[in-house]
Amino acid sequence: MTVQDTVDLKDLVRTIPDYPKDGILFRDITTLLGDADGLRICVERLTAPYLDASVDAVAGIEARGFILGGAVAEKLGCGFVPIRKKGKLPWKAIGQDYELEYGVDVIEIHEDAIRHGERVLMIDDLIATGGTAEAAVKLLAKLDAVVVGAAFVIDLPDLGGRARVEKLGIECHTLMEFEGE
Amino acid sequence: MTVQDTVDLKDLVRTIPDYPKDGILFRDITTLLGDADGLRICVERLTAPYLDASVDAVAGIEARGFILGGAVAEKLGCGFVPIRKKGKLPWKAIGQDYELEYGVDVIEIHEDAIRHGERVLMIDDLIATGGTAEAAVKLLAKLDAVVVGAAFVIDLPDLGGRARVEKLGIECHTLMEFEGE
Repeated sequence: MTVQDTVDLKDLVRTIPDYPKDGILFRDITTLLGDADGLRICVERLTAPYLDASVDAVAGIEARGFILGGAVAEKLGCGFVPIRKKGKLPWKAIGQDYELEYGVDVIEIHEDAIRHGERVLMIDDLIATGGTAEAAVKLLAKLDAVVVGAAFVIDLPDLGGRARVEKLGIECHTLMEFEGE
Repeated sequence: MTVQDTVDLKDLVRTIPDYPKDGILFRDITTLLGDADGLRICVERLTAPYLDASVDAVAGIEARGFILGGAVAEKLGCGFVPIRKKGKLPWKAIGQDYELEYGVDVIEIHEDAIRHGERVLMIDDLIATGGTAEAAVKLLAKLDAVVVGAAFVIDLPDLGGRARVEKLGIECHTLMEFEGE
């Protein structure tokens, strides 16, 4: 039996009640990523389905998606592309709006980050309502990327994000679910 | 001759004049990280001096330090700890002020992110004046971490950050320099 078989990644996630506001159970992955086995296994499992997918670039969503995205890109032997909050990228960027509970936010990508037809894997720590993920898919489409998949550590299926992204034709890969959100 | 010998990492950095303001030459590493060889070699070279340093955790500084920090931690077989801007961490955190050109900013770390005496490698993309890096060293000291080193892709030696951090007794490792800042 290997360490991989004995570590339950879910046990390494810290649940914080009433954060960022009353009634929300926040799933904190810092405890998972701070654990050597936790980090290694996350990177392995996020990477595994794409080893033979000819991925040209991993696009990680700011900020927690950067932590795993860089490691997954390195493991896949491809480059890493950041998708950032508005105004954070230094070069010419294109943006995509997405709705928040109150108002609208924007994510951006450098307009030369992906070449036409390149195969891109999207990475973020968690998928909840899927608003950011959907915006990221649209952003990558504007650059004529082929999105080969979207991988997340945590899925909150009750919030429907995975279904929303899969309706766009993008297959999602997640490592664990927390229900009852 | 290997690819490693033929790739000059500096050539992969994009220089953006007058960003974020007139007279500044901004060194953009997204082009370096977006290149498969560039990312791989950065991670290898950042990691190499610490392979036998018994590192318990890599602390990466938000946000670009996350991209490389996660990959370096995974390669060293240790955990990753985020050092974030104020108000971004969900659990109990401690903070450290540092001076900006106009005003003061704060970075934070979870108070249980590092155990007493753990050996920590600090990672960020670039060291300029060293203000953030010095604050990060002080933050890690508050948790009684042993900082085994601080590694950066880019050093801007004219701004004196490396010397400032080394005065604190922390050895710095950098992959390239740009002078005349």
